[in-house]
Amino acid sequence: MAGNSSAARSVTSRALDLLGAFDADHRSLSLSDLARRTEIPLATAHRLVAELQKWGALAREPDGSYVIGRRIWQLGLLAPVQSGLRQAASPFLHDLYGATLATVHLAVRDGLEVLYVDRLAGHVSVPVISKVGSRLPLHATGVGKALLAYAPEDVLVEALKRLTRITAYTVTQPARLLEQLRRVRAEGYATTGEEMSLGACSVAVPVRNGDQVVAALGIVVPDLRRQLPRMVSALQVAAHGIGRTLAGTPSVQWK
Amino acid sequence: MAGNSSAARSVTSRALDLLGAFDADHRSLSLSDLARRTEIPLATAHRLVAELQKWGALAREPDGSYVIGRRIWQLGLLAPVQSGLRQAASPFLHDLYGATLATVHLAVRDGLEVLYVDRLAGHVSVPVISKVGSRLPLHATGVGKALLAYAPEDVLVEALKRLTRITAYTVTQPARLLEQLRRVRAEGYATTGEEMSLGACSVAVPVRNGDQVVAALGIVVPDLRRQLPRMVSALQVAAHGIGRTLAGTPSVQWK
Repeated sequence: MAGNSSAARSVTSRALDLLGAFDADHRSLSLSDLARRTEIPLATAHRLVAELQKWGALAREPDGSYVIGRRIWQLGLLAPVQSGLRQAASPFLHDLYGATLATVHLAVRDGLEVLYVDRLAGHVSVPVISKVGSRLPLHATGVGKALLAYAPEDVLVEALKRLTRITAYTVTQPARLLEQLRRVRAEGYATTGEEMSLGACSVAVPVRNGDQVVAALGIVVPDLRRQLPRMVSALQVAAHGIGRTLAGTPSVQWK
Repeated sequence: MAGNSSAARSVTSRALDLLGAFDADHRSLSLSDLARRTEIPLATAHRLVAELQKWGALAREPDGSYVIGRRIWQLGLLAPVQSGLRQAASPFLHDLYGATLATVHLAVRDGLEVLYVDRLAGHVSVPVISKVGSRLPLHATGVGKALLAYAPEDVLVEALKRLTRITAYTVTQPARLLEQLRRVRAEGYATTGEEMSLGACSVAVPVRNGDQVVAALGIVVPDLRRQLPRMVSALQVAAHGIGRTLAGTPSVQWK
């Protein structure tokens, strides 16, 4: 034990590690799961979990397991990615969904992945694997290509090293992807054809706040050929609207 | 200092208090704001904030202030209120929005308030004051009345003590509200007419998981008279769909 300051640091990071033990594949964890996943002794885990539960960061299910609490959900709604970007974009996404009935995506780049910030889909939309908060590779998604086309050089270099094959149609040759990204910049939109999921194609456009590309807006449809110009127009109108809303709200710094 | 266990409890609760200092009216706080709002000494606040930032629970803005970080947003997406109820309901909400273009609400009761779990609105929808994560009184909203009609006796008794007037049309007489709630149970839907905001009327229905009313689904429109039967049908179809989805997913325990 190296004095109070070190003990304090350790306790906070342990409490945070307990929260971090939850992910999309582990939404519900028993106390012993939590202790094991965080390598925290059971008695300590028990005490910290009780504090987290009391505050509302964790909630206990009828079966005795723990889940992320409503208070964390409410706090998360205050994060700028949600309260700034997602909220500014929301009416435009709904307009776009109302016009197309396609699955609509709003995404940002987080490192070398696409992070889905919002997603609208009804029962008539093409089934897709993305969820809000989920991540997918940049090179295999429409929103990812739209983001990668405007990403810094170092991000592009790293992304080109990881062109993993997901379907038979995924672009895995660096030269071919570079040519596609050049066309995204020239034409203002990105497309994919079954590169992430068979049966799903996508079109996406960048969302700008001033000069900066801060997000991408995309739709997923079974087939691009017939309606591409109409979809690109609808996406661009919505992306401009989001950009204007972001630029007009100086308190929004969502990155 | 009463030994390690007490120090630990104090540190965790201080870290949580720093997170809890953020709310809808305080989305961005300076270090000194944080220290003042939590009554934590500046040096301690500084150290804890640095740990929270390192983990991603807080993020630092270009102006030096702190905001809730993306990691808390992502964790919040795992909360059952989001991952269970909101996700199960999402396609039905979008169908309902596509059919009506009205503002669509999904809400749960949290104590004596309505907590808005999801909200869809396009640019043609009636402007409303609710936001996802915001709370409003039970007695003045359509979703609130739908929830109150099926609430336990003690909740009803407490709610009847707090019939605050919000507009000239808010129901503030206990006997009149009780009669309305009886009709909600008999007819299966609740309505409001400018009781929360002038110019906005609402219709709402309960969402059931088995026998339990677990949420309410509502739409906000400028005028109820012309389309009420059609709106009630659309809401009931969607509410049954959500209920079936919840009942069919045994891992979902979202309450």
